[in-house]
Amino acid sequence: MKLLVKNLDIASRGVLLNRADARSIGVLDGDRVQVMNQKSGVSVAAFVETTSTITPQGTIGVYRFTNDRLHLDDGNEIEVREAARPASLDFVKKKMDGGKISKEEMLTIIKDVVSEDLSSAELTAFIIASYINPLDMDEVEHLTRAMVETGEHIKFSSRPIVDKHSIGGVPGNKISLLVVPIIAASGLKIPKTSSRAITGAGGTADLMEVVANVEFSAAEVQKMTEKVGGVIVWGGATNIAPADDRIIIQEYPFKIDARGQMLASVMAKKFAVGANLVVIDIPVGQNTKVASMQQGRKLAREFIELGERLNMRVECALTYGDIPVGRSIGPKLEVIEALRVLEGSTEPNSFIQKSLSLAGIALEMSGKAARGTGMDMAQDILRKGKALEKFRQIIEIQGGDPNVKSDDIIPGEHQFVVNAPSSGYVIEMNNQSLITLARIAGAPHDPGAGILLHAKKGNLIKTGEPLFTIYAERSWRLQKAIEDGRRLMPILVEGMLLDRVPSLSEY
Amino acid sequence: MKLLVKNLDIASRGVLLNRADARSIGVLDGDRVQVMNQKSGVSVAAFVETTSTITPQGTIGVYRFTNDRLHLDDGNEIEVREAARPASLDFVKKKMDGGKISKEEMLTIIKDVVSEDLSSAELTAFIIASYINPLDMDEVEHLTRAMVETGEHIKFSSRPIVDKHSIGGVPGNKISLLVVPIIAASGLKIPKTSSRAITGAGGTADLMEVVANVEFSAAEVQKMTEKVGGVIVWGGATNIAPADDRIIIQEYPFKIDARGQMLASVMAKKFAVGANLVVIDIPVGQNTKVASMQQGRKLAREFIELGERLNMRVECALTYGDIPVGRSIGPKLEVIEALRVLEGSTEPNSFIQKSLSLAGIALEMSGKAARGTGMDMAQDILRKGKALEKFRQIIEIQGGDPNVKSDDIIPGEHQFVVNAPSSGYVIEMNNQSLITLARIAGAPHDPGAGILLHAKKGNLIKTGEPLFTIYAERSWRLQKAIEDGRRLMPILVEGMLLDRVPSLSEY
Repeated sequence: MKLLVKNLDIASRGVLLNRADARSIGVLDGDRVQVMNQKSGVSVAAFVETTSTITPQGTIGVYRFTNDRLHLDDGNEIEVREAARPASLDFVKKKMDGGKISKEEMLTIIKDVVSEDLSSAELTAFIIASYINPLDMDEVEHLTRAMVETGEHIKFSSRPIVDKHSIGGVPGNKISLLVVPIIAASGLKIPKTSSRAITGAGGTADLMEVVANVEFSAAEVQKMTEKVGGVIVWGGATNIAPADDRIIIQEYPFKIDARGQMLASVMAKKFAVGANLVVIDIPVGQNTKVASMQQGRKLAREFIELGERLNMRVECALTYGDIPVGRSIGPKLEVIEALRVLEGSTEPNSFIQKSLSLAGIALEMSGKAARGTGMDMAQDILRKGKALEKFRQIIEIQGGDPNVKSDDIIPGEHQFVVNAPSSGYVIEMNNQSLITLARIAGAPHDPGAGILLHAKKGNLIKTGEPLFTIYAERSWRLQKAIEDGRRLMPILVEGMLLDRVPSLSEY
Repeated sequence: MKLLVKNLDIASRGVLLNRADARSIGVLDGDRVQVMNQKSGVSVAAFVETTSTITPQGTIGVYRFTNDRLHLDDGNEIEVREAARPASLDFVKKKMDGGKISKEEMLTIIKDVVSEDLSSAELTAFIIASYINPLDMDEVEHLTRAMVETGEHIKFSSRPIVDKHSIGGVPGNKISLLVVPIIAASGLKIPKTSSRAITGAGGTADLMEVVANVEFSAAEVQKMTEKVGGVIVWGGATNIAPADDRIIIQEYPFKIDARGQMLASVMAKKFAVGANLVVIDIPVGQNTKVASMQQGRKLAREFIELGERLNMRVECALTYGDIPVGRSIGPKLEVIEALRVLEGSTEPNSFIQKSLSLAGIALEMSGKAARGTGMDMAQDILRKGKALEKFRQIIEIQGGDPNVKSDDIIPGEHQFVVNAPSSGYVIEMNNQSLITLARIAGAPHDPGAGILLHAKKGNLIKTGEPLFTIYAERSWRLQKAIEDGRRLMPILVEGMLLDRVPSLSEY
């Protein structure tokens, strides 16, 4: 059917059909039509929404993402027909039925994911099927390679290329801000792409954005890394393994991180930037993604096996994930803490030790440091100010102010100190509640929002002493955080009243 | 955040936010916001799309289905915030993890399905999880009751109430057009709700719509059934078990009919109309939903057990489903065939025998006929013209012309006869290809489109004799059907050339 174009600035891969036209074409809301620019010959599939008024019969509303490849102007005549069912649905079905997906089938699925030819429901089906019927290592390898192939890659002229990754789940995990400068200062190359928070209070990209630009193309990442040895950028802007972002968004409602997809997504990003030495941080703890050491070791072995299949050397560090890393949660607060350590502070210990351990592993893998001496070398680089110097170079090449100091960064002006209601040891810190509270206060969208911990698990604290401070950029968000904080109780002090149950009637 | 309303006539449960507002609220495309009409206090969740231009900052585009319960006018000020995650997602997750869903949890899920508080992706996750980790009979019962509870029901003052259902997959299965009038003519009540075709060439509702209105409320269905003994209406208009439609639409891309959902959906509709005697037609055959007699018997036992749990007597008929029922496929062609039989024609045998068998079972279950005599009684009702008379009453009460005759119904004017390319027996009829071909010709949207079979499996046919005729209402559709028919080859004659492979080079 021929229809006239009316461009609509709606950020989705849809079209808006008059109901009569939809009926004629034989499609319902949510169905797919094939839309063809007859001049250029370019054709894309788009999802149908319908109206009786906004587009009259004979006219089609073309949403923004649909027009990204079509380049249609208002009034153009285009051909619209019912779209064929993507072949990848048959492969998704195969996985639902417990079958094994071949290399070619996996590539077809991931191509359709990247081109957005699968609806969010169809992609969800793939994720759920792979969650229930887990991908085996062959399928994970296929998925990894398909993710790499459907995005951009970087080829460095010399090796080794180092990379690190934390699988997440622990608040305040700002270690890349130390690890990357240390590795780069040692003379190694580390092109670190990182994520923004989806469910967290701040991804590494959100943190780095406090002091520099984080949106660069893959080519720019390569150029900058060649120059200063390292970068800390947002992976989402590079178009490296773009399938991953789409998969993660669909996993979000179910709070899952399907094992196969997780392995593939981490390793695809490392593979695509050309890394051949990779350190993986696996936080283990009740409130993280990996609950026990046993599970952590199993996951580590899988990362290592997948690395071997891809000709990458992988080492994994199982780390303590029950409580936050350091004392800060939220972009600006975390950057302040990291800068202070780079500037010479010897606190907080948990943050420094973890960062040095991971950097040390990479230094040993590369041969820069002898076995058993990597951490010392990392500490030396940090103490001598070489990591700070390198971090400033990285900030500068990413368009930030290289002279920024920790004191220049001002967190949210609205603050509330929560004091200990009773004396005793801090017996419990709930990662999830801390993240939730930081988000209610505005993190990561408001970079100054977050939580600063004054006591950590095991500390002895007296009644009335500060337990933590909530920071916010907007007073109403602070108010909401204060209210919800009472319910969330993210930190428990021994002897603290957990709840009070009133008697049914008072005599 | 307070925003001003701009109503947008787009048929979905969405809102259109300016990107800046979306960022402030902290939501991305596809996320959920809670939208509140502050005057009425009514609040609904809606899915976010974003724009930079169509709605300026401070204004929210409210799509039609979102406004169905809110009743907002342009310029109203409303409160919009990030919506809470529906609790039902935790229960979906439980099923993904192999857990068992309780009665209350199932009700929560289905309530969210009916109120469209779950996105299509989230509903898909529930369906895929139940497909891979099948619902047990307790869960199927919970699902059935939840489907009934979340829709309208009918309570008749007297029993028995008969109902029938075909689980589908066989083209040309117009038997309700005979079974319902026969049952009603016997003095029993049969309030038959039926479906429109989604993937088929014509559901019973599409067929009935050729001669009468099929869109009625549940209350009207009851009133009409009390008056004339039976109706044939579209279930989708009644709001009986509305969850079912939404589930079926999400199953469509994967071509699945998840066992638990199918059992529940059929039985919920029967239970909701108050039926206590139910006959289920299970077509068995290579190209239907049930491939073997063994599978058919298992499914039958499940229907019967579910019926017992709901205090309904169920009998199942395993029927021959390898080839179409009768000779016609497509709304008008099928109605013509059914009317001819009601008017006295004794052909086609397959259609008449199947209809009489199923009607006979219901007559025996009700006690109207003694065991073993139901089919004779059904035949008697048909032969004596009582079924025709009853069908006319049903047509009349549903607003159609009771005097309609088979010859009054004119199928598509564009026709093409496919002749046998060679002499021999008809060895193969492919249900799926026949349905596809009828759909390409325009069925069910164009009611005059379809296929008329001149020979059936096992018939001897001579070269040049007509094999089948394609009917269409539009010439371009006929052309497309003729072209595709060559590829689809829905009917094979012994000795017919299946393909011709040319030599690579001709010397």
